[in-house]
Amino acid sequence: MSIEEKIAALGLTLPQPPAPAGAYVPAVQSGNLLFLSGTLPMADGKMTHSGMIGSSPEKDIAYGYAAARQCALAALANAKAYLGSLERIKRIVNVNGFVYAPEGFADAPKVINGASELFLELFGENGKHARAAVALGGVPLHATAEVQVVLEIA
Amino acid sequence: MSIEEKIAALGLTLPQPPAPAGAYVPAVQSGNLLFLSGTLPMADGKMTHSGMIGSSPEKDIAYGYAAARQCALAALANAKAYLGSLERIKRIVNVNGFVYAPEGFADAPKVINGASELFLELFGENGKHARAAVALGGVPLHATAEVQVVLEIA
Amino acid sequence: MSIEEKIAALGLTLPQPPAPAGAYVPAVQSGNLLFLSGTLPMADGKMTHSGMIGSSPEKDIAYGYAAARQCALAALANAKAYLGSLERIKRIVNVNGFVYAPEGFADAPKVINGASELFLELFGENGKHARAAVALGGVPLHATAEVQVVLEIA
Repeated sequence: MSIEEKIAALGLTLPQPPAPAGAYVPAVQSGNLLFLSGTLPMADGKMTHSGMIGSSPEKDIAYGYAAARQCALAALANAKAYLGSLERIKRIVNVNGFVYAPEGFADAPKVINGASELFLELFGENGKHARAAVALGGVPLHATAEVQVVLEIA
Repeated sequence: MSIEEKIAALGLTLPQPPAPAGAYVPAVQSGNLLFLSGTLPMADGKMTHSGMIGSSPEKDIAYGYAAARQCALAALANAKAYLGSLERIKRIVNVNGFVYAPEGFADAPKVINGASELFLELFGENGKHARAAVALGGVPLHATAEVQVVLEIA
Repeated sequence: MSIEEKIAALGLTLPQPPAPAGAYVPAVQSGNLLFLSGTLPMADGKMTHSGMIGSSPEKDIAYGYAAARQCALAALANAKAYLGSLERIKRIVNVNGFVYAPEGFADAPKVINGASELFLELFGENGKHARAAVALGGVPLHATAEVQVVLEIA
C-alpha cells in the first residue's frame, strides 16, 4: 500500500496544504533534508482543534492527541505538495511538538504522540523519529498544537 | 546590489555580532548547513526591544515585529562574522521564532514576520524559508523575541 | 582521555539511556547529522531534577543548571547507545534548551549553560555549539529542563 492508501485505510484524509500563517513557505529542501514549516491542526482551510488544553472539559489530552494527529496530516500535505508524492519520503527524522497548555502542564508527550503514532502507522520503521515536546502559552491562531517536522528524502 | 547594500538601502544597519548570552558560539557549520544561535534584538551591545508583548500599550504587535526584524539583523551579523561575507549565504532554510507574550497570545506569526519579511526583502527567492513560531513566557534577558536560523551556504 | 574517562574524571556518571516518554526514538541519523530526542534530567530511570524554577527556594538557577547538566548526560547516553562509542562524535552542532520557569523568567541561558559547559568540558573545541534557550510553562513530566541536541558524527 502506498502512504496515501494507508492514510485512507485509517479513515483519514490528507487535507489541502494549509496556507502559511506568515511570510514563509511550507517546505525547504537542503541536501536530502526537507524542513517543513510548523503546521497547525488544519483541514482544508479550517482549524479543526483550537483552544488551550484544560480550558474546558472536552479540551483534554485526547483532544490534544487528535489535534497533533491533524497537525501531522497537514505536515504531510505540505510534503506532498513539495515532493509530488509521499513515496519520496525516506524517513521521518525529527519532530518538534508545541502544545498550547497552562503553566505546569506535564503531558506534552501524550499530546504529541498523536503526530508520532500516525508517522509510525504510516511509515513503519522509517517513521521512527527523534522528538522534543513542550507546552507553552501561545500557539498561532489559538491552535491546540503545532508540529514541526524534518524529513529525509530519497 | 550586495546583501549589505540592500540592508543599507532599507535604512538598516548590520549591528556588531552580539556577544553570546552563554557558553555557546554564534554559528556552527556542518556540511552546507550553518546553524546560527538564537539571537535577540540587539544592536551593538544594547537590547533594542524588551518586555512582554501587551505589557504596556506601546508593546504591541508592531513593536514585536520590529524586535523580530532586529533579531534577524543580529543573526545576519553572526553569519557575516562566520562567513566573512553575506554573499556566501545560498538560502535561508529554517527560522524558529519565539515571542515573549502572555498566555493565550495567538499572533506569534505576525511578530516573527518581522524577521521573515526582512529575509525575503534581502534574499528574494533564496530568502523563502520554513518556519515555526510560538509564544512563551520567557525569552532571555526579557527580550521581546528570539529568532533561530539555519542557513545553507555555498 | 576518552570522553567517558573525562565524564568519570568530572565525578559524573553516564546514566542508562532514558526510556522515551512517547512514540519516538532516542536518535535518528541523516547523513553525518545525528538528531537526538529532547532529554530530561534522568539518571537510570529516575528524574533527578523536577519542578518549576522559583517554585521553592531550592529550585534556583543553580538547581536548573544542574538539571540541564543531567539532561546533557542523558543525551550523551542516547548518543552512546546509538553510536556504540562517544568517540564517534565529531562535533556538538546545536543545542535547544527549554526551561520550566514562570512567566517573565529571563535567565534561561544561565540554566542551559549547565548543558553547554559540560559539552565544552568534555569535547573542548568540538563541543562549541550553536544554541537557543527559552523558558516556558510546561516541560514533560514536570522536569526542570529539557535539552535537544544535534550532533555531527564521523
